[in-house]
Amino acid sequence: MKKSLQEIALYLGGSVAGDGEILIGGLATLDDAGEGQLTFLANPKYAAKVATTRASAVLLPQGANAHGHNAIFHANPYLAFAKLLTLFYTAPAAPLGVMPGAFVAEGVRMGADVSVYPGVSIGSGAVLGDRVTLHPGVVIYPGAVLGDDVTLYSNVSIRERCRIGNRVIIHDGTVIGSDGFGYAPDGKSWYKIPQIGIVVVEDDVEIGSNSVVDRAALEVTRIGRGTKIDNLVQIAHNCVIGEDCMIVSQVGISGSTQLGSHVIMGGQVGVAGHIKIGDNVMVAAKSGVAASLAANQTVGGIPAIPHREWLKTSMTIPKLPEFRKTVSSLEKRVAELEKLVQSLGK
Amino acid sequence: MKKSLQEIALYLGGSVAGDGEILIGGLATLDDAGEGQLTFLANPKYAAKVATTRASAVLLPQGANAHGHNAIFHANPYLAFAKLLTLFYTAPAAPLGVMPGAFVAEGVRMGADVSVYPGVSIGSGAVLGDRVTLHPGVVIYPGAVLGDDVTLYSNVSIRERCRIGNRVIIHDGTVIGSDGFGYAPDGKSWYKIPQIGIVVVEDDVEIGSNSVVDRAALEVTRIGRGTKIDNLVQIAHNCVIGEDCMIVSQVGISGSTQLGSHVIMGGQVGVAGHIKIGDNVMVAAKSGVAASLAANQTVGGIPAIPHREWLKTSMTIPKLPEFRKTVSSLEKRVAELEKLVQSLGK
Amino acid sequence: MKKSLQEIALYLGGSVAGDGEILIGGLATLDDAGEGQLTFLANPKYAAKVATTRASAVLLPQGANAHGHNAIFHANPYLAFAKLLTLFYTAPAAPLGVMPGAFVAEGVRMGADVSVYPGVSIGSGAVLGDRVTLHPGVVIYPGAVLGDDVTLYSNVSIRERCRIGNRVIIHDGTVIGSDGFGYAPDGKSWYKIPQIGIVVVEDDVEIGSNSVVDRAALEVTRIGRGTKIDNLVQIAHNCVIGEDCMIVSQVGISGSTQLGSHVIMGGQVGVAGHIKIGDNVMVAAKSGVAASLAANQTVGGIPAIPHREWLKTSMTIPKLPEFRKTVSSLEKRVAELEKLVQSLGK
Repeated sequence: MKKSLQEIALYLGGSVAGDGEILIGGLATLDDAGEGQLTFLANPKYAAKVATTRASAVLLPQGANAHGHNAIFHANPYLAFAKLLTLFYTAPAAPLGVMPGAFVAEGVRMGADVSVYPGVSIGSGAVLGDRVTLHPGVVIYPGAVLGDDVTLYSNVSIRERCRIGNRVIIHDGTVIGSDGFGYAPDGKSWYKIPQIGIVVVEDDVEIGSNSVVDRAALEVTRIGRGTKIDNLVQIAHNCVIGEDCMIVSQVGISGSTQLGSHVIMGGQVGVAGHIKIGDNVMVAAKSGVAASLAANQTVGGIPAIPHREWLKTSMTIPKLPEFRKTVSSLEKRVAELEKLVQSLGK
Repeated sequence: MKKSLQEIALYLGGSVAGDGEILIGGLATLDDAGEGQLTFLANPKYAAKVATTRASAVLLPQGANAHGHNAIFHANPYLAFAKLLTLFYTAPAAPLGVMPGAFVAEGVRMGADVSVYPGVSIGSGAVLGDRVTLHPGVVIYPGAVLGDDVTLYSNVSIRERCRIGNRVIIHDGTVIGSDGFGYAPDGKSWYKIPQIGIVVVEDDVEIGSNSVVDRAALEVTRIGRGTKIDNLVQIAHNCVIGEDCMIVSQVGISGSTQLGSHVIMGGQVGVAGHIKIGDNVMVAAKSGVAASLAANQTVGGIPAIPHREWLKTSMTIPKLPEFRKTVSSLEKRVAELEKLVQSLGK
Repeated sequence: MKKSLQEIALYLGGSVAGDGEILIGGLATLDDAGEGQLTFLANPKYAAKVATTRASAVLLPQGANAHGHNAIFHANPYLAFAKLLTLFYTAPAAPLGVMPGAFVAEGVRMGADVSVYPGVSIGSGAVLGDRVTLHPGVVIYPGAVLGDDVTLYSNVSIRERCRIGNRVIIHDGTVIGSDGFGYAPDGKSWYKIPQIGIVVVEDDVEIGSNSVVDRAALEVTRIGRGTKIDNLVQIAHNCVIGEDCMIVSQVGISGSTQLGSHVIMGGQVGVAGHIKIGDNVMVAAKSGVAASLAANQTVGGIPAIPHREWLKTSMTIPKLPEFRKTVSSLEKRVAELEKLVQSLGK
């Protein structure tokens, strides 16, 4: 596919500087782009690279220096470049139907234009919407329901009766709806509490590879519309995650915890069970959240405290040994002073 | 299935208050239960909800206020409710045999009443007990041995010669017996140490989704009877985990470490290699255990210390910056005093 | 297989003490070895066990006490024992070809002597080298390229166009090349940035189970030659990992970070994005690396600092509450002194 710079600017809602007639056939980074390619500057840190790029055109923030290149100026070049990547590189594949080697139980309902690869298993009573793509090794347990335009990559499992919304993408190996970790002590061992609830994954959610969302004990574990979850994340049973959250790799959220909307959690964060995290809360990577958090704040540390305090605290921690010496020497000096003052007072 | 309140009380060993003849057809939470359903109160925090529940009956601790509801009083309503969930919702499925699309190598021995779904692979010389259920995509490598009543969910892998006990449940994507992480430096690179040992998972163990238990270098990595392991947990080679332990999500236990029985580890705990953790030790979430721990204690922090000390310490950490100012001001005041006292002494 | 002690010594480049003619048929630990088996001492901590082992021969460091056993002395008994394990226990299996129940799309090129198990899916345009083994449930997406002597265990996924070098081993459930976690905020929700780059895994890399290496946004996520990665590790998009690194279980490395060669990371380490870690850096388990690190140092803590300082600091942290009392009492004593000195000065 080739498009003129002018066409691209129109598509993005940006303005052209230089030759709008040149044809663009692909996209690349400032370092790698060459003849016929368009590149972009989003991070001002790399502005100097614009001068030396060999790209045919550059997508720039308003008012940036084009260094003589053909350019499109745009209010949000990062988002605009993402939209161009979609335009140039993500043509929808033709539907393949149910391919030989896929196993479909009785009583499965399927929409139009699905692609079901070899090695997929679909259990009885499952429902697939239109344009669903199931890569090899996907397992849809009985009674699970998938909306339209769902893409499940290889070896994803959707357990019994779980519900997946429209336009959901789940990457390889992720498990939706395995049993929550619930046991009652019977005085000697652990008695398994049957997990009879489900998981609901709402529209436009994307989940990375090898993550796990457990089914609720009795009701619903919910992932809200538009939320993005990275690889190797654990969402325990009965959690309710709000809309448009961003949960980075290796985060673990304990059972029955509720997140508001637009919550952002850095990598390896751990969150205790049965607490509430308000809207727009941001949690720094590797933090441990032990108690509920009101909306609109940034926190960090184990246990998590307001992020500014955590930054100050974490810079102080390494000074502790030196600091300890200071206090130790202060103790001696004060004891000495006390003696002196006592003798003076006599 | 419907049962009278009186029948249920008899089954559980509890006592009825109100109408023992009413029929119960299902279970739900205090908030969600309605006509014909039984609910329960386990956590006194929610006692007020008993007054307003629309359930037909409530399972209550001895002496609790039934607020005029039909009720069963029981010494352990949490455990009792779990037993009712099992009774009402976990009827054993009829065995399906080896279904078309399952791959069974030569020399596999199988017990009675197995269910082997499409897409399962069973390697030569493997042994399956009675009533084993293997969901789609399960891979049993050559020589692996499974006991009776084992359920392996989709895409679980049991590597070569590993042994799985009776009534073991393993959720989707978990790997038992991949190679331990062992290399010998050869002066330049890493020489792989073949991992020729196995994993033994004893009776009544349950393991969550996408966890990994590595095979021993030479001998046995062992998961003791009744132990419950959550999702995304790492158990390294040569570990020996005792009985009835509870290991929460994203815990990592390094090689050759031994856990006693009834050890409980919160989420994201890390444990060093080659150490011993005594019986009944509890480790708070996100802690790092760097050294052996005697039995019967609760620890927390990185590195882990007795939990009470850790609580005090962790509350002190955020005061460090303020604390530092105090010490700095003390230093000035002491220096000032020293000058004054010196001049007074003259 | 049986070999004389003398033959084994020749193979390893070591020297025999005692009877070189005895035949060795297997290897075991000091505790477990018996008649006809050879054992080894690598860790001097276990030297006393040499006296009591029932092995027919012992592999020992130069100058160690053989306690009357037949022995081979070797400069590096740990490495030598690993080589014997390879010799005795890792005979290459006869190639099985493409077995029934494997799905191979059109236009796939395969080398000689491959073993492709049932339930494997290979997409169009993929390339397999010689002696490649794909265990059940492996998914090779279209256009992926595998070198010679590659072994992929069950349910490994190699996503579109990714490239795997020679002699690479990847354990069960690991995903290479799923989409990087990249979104552009569009003012309300998150707009997915198509991830059009690939992953390159160089020669002699080994990766454990259920790990994830994400494909680059535009270019290449690279795992350098000889690097070993454990289970449940996250390598985010655009990372470049050097050669012969060792990355222990549950480590997470954020996007666009670069590691030099021979970097060693302990379990559960987290590394921030867009930073550089120099050659030979070692990071203690559970640390958080927030900023770039120069080569040839050992660090620890959250955030990571030089390891010696971290050890001192981490030992001081638990003293904080006591320490706080000391400072509080110092404040009182200094205030008292100030009053006294003031009154003396009058």
